[in-house]
Amino acid sequence: MNMLDLDAPYLRLDTAILESNIRAMSASAQARGLGLWPHAKTHKSVEIARRQLDAGAAGLTVATVGEAEVFARAGAPGIFIAYPLWVTPARAERLLKVASQTQLRIGVDSPSAADQLARFGIPAEVMIEVDSGHHRSGCPPEAAGALAAHARRLGLTVAGVFTFPGHSYAPGRGDAAADDEGRAVSEAVAGLKNAGVAAPVVSGGSSPSAAYSRSVLTDIRPGVYVFNDAQQLELGACTPEEIALTVVATVVSKPAGRMVLDAGTKTLGADRAVWASGHGRLLEHPDARITAASEHHATVEMSGPLPALGSRILVVPNHACNAVNLHDQYVLTGGSAALGADGGSAGPVTWAVDARGMN
Amino acid sequence: MNMLDLDAPYLRLDTAILESNIRAMSASAQARGLGLWPHAKTHKSVEIARRQLDAGAAGLTVATVGEAEVFARAGAPGIFIAYPLWVTPARAERLLKVASQTQLRIGVDSPSAADQLARFGIPAEVMIEVDSGHHRSGCPPEAAGALAAHARRLGLTVAGVFTFPGHSYAPGRGDAAADDEGRAVSEAVAGLKNAGVAAPVVSGGSSPSAAYSRSVLTDIRPGVYVFNDAQQLELGACTPEEIALTVVATVVSKPAGRMVLDAGTKTLGADRAVWASGHGRLLEHPDARITAASEHHATVEMSGPLPALGSRILVVPNHACNAVNLHDQYVLTGGSAALGADGGSAGPVTWAVDARGMN
Repeated sequence: MNMLDLDAPYLRLDTAILESNIRAMSASAQARGLGLWPHAKTHKSVEIARRQLDAGAAGLTVATVGEAEVFARAGAPGIFIAYPLWVTPARAERLLKVASQTQLRIGVDSPSAADQLARFGIPAEVMIEVDSGHHRSGCPPEAAGALAAHARRLGLTVAGVFTFPGHSYAPGRGDAAADDEGRAVSEAVAGLKNAGVAAPVVSGGSSPSAAYSRSVLTDIRPGVYVFNDAQQLELGACTPEEIALTVVATVVSKPAGRMVLDAGTKTLGADRAVWASGHGRLLEHPDARITAASEHHATVEMSGPLPALGSRILVVPNHACNAVNLHDQYVLTGGSAALGADGGSAGPVTWAVDARGMN
Repeated sequence: MNMLDLDAPYLRLDTAILESNIRAMSASAQARGLGLWPHAKTHKSVEIARRQLDAGAAGLTVATVGEAEVFARAGAPGIFIAYPLWVTPARAERLLKVASQTQLRIGVDSPSAADQLARFGIPAEVMIEVDSGHHRSGCPPEAAGALAAHARRLGLTVAGVFTFPGHSYAPGRGDAAADDEGRAVSEAVAGLKNAGVAAPVVSGGSSPSAAYSRSVLTDIRPGVYVFNDAQQLELGACTPEEIALTVVATVVSKPAGRMVLDAGTKTLGADRAVWASGHGRLLEHPDARITAASEHHATVEMSGPLPALGSRILVVPNHACNAVNLHDQYVLTGGSAALGADGGSAGPVTWAVDARGMN
């Protein structure tokens, strides 16, 4: 089967670049003495998680109970739900099963959430979430000690603290966000110590701030690095050669000097940060900009001759995590993984997006 | 089964409001003598399409071949793929099958796309797409006549012209966009007449411009009206009472006077127009604003006392079409459709998002 016979738009994964990205992050974490817990919400794929673990990851980070179920079943040695879960009876049953399959850690940022965990007897370690400046979830650093002490009084085991310095997602903010992160988790760790809670884990990091992360961290949870995307490119956190994931689109319309592709927000996602140059980038046309996107249209402006109608174009989504969740499978290319067992004649090799929609 | 036992976030559909929205649009189209071809990309649901057809819709509009397959199989009498499709060999096979099941119309905005349709012998009627000011796909109105003549020379049947006045999606722009639409399709229709192509259909409309649409139209293709969403609300195209679709979320965190819900861009979609007040609205808290959204977090600012941790909150997505495509099913509420055959004791009634991911 020829790749042109595949109906576009589809998700294309270059496995050679994927494996190189996985190796590079493992080497970087190891060199800095950091435990690597890759965030699997980015890829939602058992095949990719297995490669991350084989390359030295200590465990996997996830955002939801559904993701935890998929990766626990697949044999991950440890799973950290880095999210302030609210445990309900239905959810408790599922968490008990996950905890029987793997070492489970769960984020907590309020006494009430800790109460729920204890009430249902979930045998998970608690990770105290701290707000380091992103102002999303997470308790203030100065409240971490009291929260940890509360959890311990409930009989829960506190493994440590974590934060997501998401305010690093703006041009030139990586270093300052890492600074905030270092200060916040240091204060939280001191608070735990003052409260008499000995908890060894200090987990942090975001892709744009990872290179700057301070030595107080023991663990990192990068996600997007496996694929990279237009956001990371435009923030300077990756090069074009490190982009493993694209959406293959078709040129369907060329009115009045512009070009319209059949990949839109239902295949690329609708993320567009205020600082983004557009709705994604074209891997092979660095000067092109996607100036508008609707569900099934990406409008491209570029200099030079426009590709012919019917041409296939590789689109780099702004945000890989949301793009992946819109697809059921990856179509592999690049390196030996793209070949089927019989050498490739049987058609394209695909990997499932196993946890798609489990949000 | 209690609705609280359902693991949130999930998609909640009030069927009483849904049915009222369907009836109102059918009555409005009938009163104006317009053929109603609802856009099924919004709901991707056979159950909902059936109700639209039962209420008097002439056929269904879709955006992709995958959607056409789902609704042709379900027995839709006519399907209009309102998109400038590029036909490949693999796609031709699928289109031939769809054309054997229903009356098929396909959008065309270039001579080359018409050539492809003819080359593969797809027995579909051609609809010429015209740009009426949205500047996405569509040929200029003055080019419609020549394109229609070209299609006819290829042996294709030209059914008419269509446009999408998508530039209506901004506050106060509905009337002006309807004006542009009227002018563009009138020029296109005149062009077809000059080229000797008699084609009866003139299809247009968008939800914010529908109320203003000019009498030159014969057909309309509204989509979002079945559900409505935060965009339509903020554009004044619907009232809160006409909103049938919400995402049920849980309050998971309440740090420092704000509230964080567990519905984010992976369950609500990431659409946020420049004029939108935030990343969605809370149905029961009209003054609340979602000031930030990430994949699994919606950060809410509101006055008055915040709901308790663990509370369920009804979130109105900014853009229903993208929100629906993130879910596998609707959970029904409101009216008799929410009751199971045995009166509701067997658990929640759901409808599948049949064409989810077929983008």
